[in-house]
Amino acid sequence: MISMISNLQKRDLQHVWHPCSQMKDYEDLPPIVIKSGKGIYLYDENGKQYIDAVSSWWVNLFGHCNERISTALVNQAFQLEHAIFANFTHEPAIFLAEKLVKITPNGLKKVFFADNGSSAIEVALKMSFQYHMQKDKRKKKRFLALTDAYHGETLGALSVGGVGLYNDVFRPLLLDTERAQGPDCFRCPFNDRPDHCSAPCLSFIEEKLELYHEEITAIIIEPLIQAAAGMKMYPPSYLKKLKELCLQYDVHLIADEIAVGFGRTGTMFACEQAGITPDFMCLSKGLTGGYLPLSVVLTTDDVYQAFYDDYHTMKAFLHSHSYTGNPLACRVALEVLQIFEEDDYIEQIRGKSTYMDKLATGVFNHQAYVGEYRQTGMVGAIELVKDKETKEPFPSEERIGYKIYQIALENGLLLRPLGNVLYFMPPYVITKEEIKTMIEKTNKAIQEFFCTR
Amino acid sequence: MISMISNLQKRDLQHVWHPCSQMKDYEDLPPIVIKSGKGIYLYDENGKQYIDAVSSWWVNLFGHCNERISTALVNQAFQLEHAIFANFTHEPAIFLAEKLVKITPNGLKKVFFADNGSSAIEVALKMSFQYHMQKDKRKKKRFLALTDAYHGETLGALSVGGVGLYNDVFRPLLLDTERAQGPDCFRCPFNDRPDHCSAPCLSFIEEKLELYHEEITAIIIEPLIQAAAGMKMYPPSYLKKLKELCLQYDVHLIADEIAVGFGRTGTMFACEQAGITPDFMCLSKGLTGGYLPLSVVLTTDDVYQAFYDDYHTMKAFLHSHSYTGNPLACRVALEVLQIFEEDDYIEQIRGKSTYMDKLATGVFNHQAYVGEYRQTGMVGAIELVKDKETKEPFPSEERIGYKIYQIALENGLLLRPLGNVLYFMPPYVITKEEIKTMIEKTNKAIQEFFCTR
Repeated sequence: MISMISNLQKRDLQHVWHPCSQMKDYEDLPPIVIKSGKGIYLYDENGKQYIDAVSSWWVNLFGHCNERISTALVNQAFQLEHAIFANFTHEPAIFLAEKLVKITPNGLKKVFFADNGSSAIEVALKMSFQYHMQKDKRKKKRFLALTDAYHGETLGALSVGGVGLYNDVFRPLLLDTERAQGPDCFRCPFNDRPDHCSAPCLSFIEEKLELYHEEITAIIIEPLIQAAAGMKMYPPSYLKKLKELCLQYDVHLIADEIAVGFGRTGTMFACEQAGITPDFMCLSKGLTGGYLPLSVVLTTDDVYQAFYDDYHTMKAFLHSHSYTGNPLACRVALEVLQIFEEDDYIEQIRGKSTYMDKLATGVFNHQAYVGEYRQTGMVGAIELVKDKETKEPFPSEERIGYKIYQIALENGLLLRPLGNVLYFMPPYVITKEEIKTMIEKTNKAIQEFFCTR
Repeated sequence: MISMISNLQKRDLQHVWHPCSQMKDYEDLPPIVIKSGKGIYLYDENGKQYIDAVSSWWVNLFGHCNERISTALVNQAFQLEHAIFANFTHEPAIFLAEKLVKITPNGLKKVFFADNGSSAIEVALKMSFQYHMQKDKRKKKRFLALTDAYHGETLGALSVGGVGLYNDVFRPLLLDTERAQGPDCFRCPFNDRPDHCSAPCLSFIEEKLELYHEEITAIIIEPLIQAAAGMKMYPPSYLKKLKELCLQYDVHLIADEIAVGFGRTGTMFACEQAGITPDFMCLSKGLTGGYLPLSVVLTTDDVYQAFYDDYHTMKAFLHSHSYTGNPLACRVALEVLQIFEEDDYIEQIRGKSTYMDKLATGVFNHQAYVGEYRQTGMVGAIELVKDKETKEPFPSEERIGYKIYQIALENGLLLRPLGNVLYFMPPYVITKEEIKTMIEKTNKAIQEFFCTR
């Protein structure tokens, strides 16, 4: 599609191995060299503008090079860039921990820092496991997770993931995770509708818990949206009942809100909509508004106390990363939370998502190759199907999504679909006018693809 | 020891769970609240100054709040804070990859980005494994690692670690790693001396490779210094022979230079001293001069090519982290490499380390409770022993190191020992005068401890 390759592109391809990429694909679609960002836009080396409709892998909240956030980062850079976090602390971490405890569900009282989403998941898995060892429940050595789950790609996190694309080849290295069929509202096996359903598909989990609860230390889930699976959405009622099951069977609940936290689903955290408090909540991505890698695991006093004892009992949670509690990242995260508060962003998100939902539903839902347009908060997804009636998917080897992605890029829109699912997860600073443009450009790319097919 | 606890300390203890800590210890030694940093110094909320003799967990190179690095970060913050790194790229990542390929051992050509040390290790383990699967060497499913190794704390990284303190409790979750006795020059089983030895202890690895080479995909090591094990140092001859063994037995060599890279051992990378090129080199910590979490895995064209194929062959390395290739961190890392070049820091390190070695050897080596003072580049370690003749260690439950650490803190020195091993790993901007002060303060803390014992 692109005939000329720039000098910078050449230099990139000589030495950079890109993530989540078959590098041979770059022969036809070389990496786009981004020079700058502003608001919802990225600009390449030729000055071409792209709408960042996926918030650069779901991390950006308040736009690229946000004036307030960049200024906060700058101030911190000349005050304290970093300090060891064992036996040492600093205001950005203290204040951030306080704020996070305040805005997350009741009962989450303690904050453990890490650097990225995968590491946060590993922390939660390890903490839950060690907790049960120290509570003398020594049979609890396995995790329960959902089909199509995605929780990161370090080996522990990958072990609880269920997307074959990422973990099939690594299976000999992965933990023996128990897996339950997750919710699938688009192709519901009970023929229910998400807005009415009583979550009968929770029986898949209940069966597993009945059989294995003595061996299971925790169940891990992505609340309301299984994102990497293709933005599979399910209702809060599922979470509410899941929490009850966890209590009944004495199993921890780990809520992976890495993708869905910080307003994505229309509330600050997805768990809010179900009124539940998980035993562990993992946060990252939006935590720094798309600026820096940082993650946290929030947990309860009950968990904390199981590790709190005299040194010689060897009950401490001896996990660390060099940059744990990095002041630069914490200061940025504090500014992000400040913006949420001062600009009443949750309210803004509601207004914008209602607008997006109405517009996108009108544009996409009637189309021949659109199985459904679905939306939760500021996440909208278009599920492309070969047959609208039977919901038969396009074969993955046709790479429908990837081809539409290429067309959209030409037209200045960054979509990056998941298989046959195109989705929007734009920065919250997007205006209604820009939402309209984003939807129109998406529609144009879909039309162009299916017309020339 | 500290009678008053400040308001900030109270607030910290209410919500922050610190890394690598028994939080009950904080009752007696509450977290020190750092307000600012400059050069080798950290300043707490009362204005008290601490020499950061451990470079805040081995990450800081050119001082806290380094003017040049902070300025580079600031400039990037208003240009491009972050962009998705799949199919997209930017100058900071391209230039950094180029520079890293240029300064690392010959043959390392490709750079894969991640966020922290643990994640880099996971990438290397996964790449080596997938490589062999795709080369149809399907028996190669296990890793070989050394006793006392430390490679991080996500479950994959922890699986190749050998420090019981960190991984004993998690054993049921860890991979079945094959483990060979590592070098121990202080208590050498062959009674050799490191400056003369021909690395007979490599036979421990050779035995394992003879038996298991068909199952082993890679051996992972910390070149020249097993850091978390207590700064155990060994000579380059060991590495040279190890590389030969890897070739002979068709096993990848993963060099974990996360702690020792970027000048720590007196050369830019530890592998240089042995003149070897590993199949994978993991870098982090000093990569950003102590500013931000960032890590890379460098590898060869041979490895890269095994993944390079048409998409449908499903040979791609599908690993990613949201902030992979973060421009802010890459820009900071570029500035760090610039400082190395312009200020000829490797030469400076040599001068300073010679001075430190001479002074510290004179001060510590004759002392009754010092087994040895050893040094490699800018890493100096004091091994405390109960009996100088027999080298009998102090029982770990006495927490000798921790007690001396507390005394040193009172005197404005941040040491953070590893068990019975006190060590220096100061920022490279330390002056000779400051090296002297650091050594004197350490000596004073040791004397004070043993005199009042």
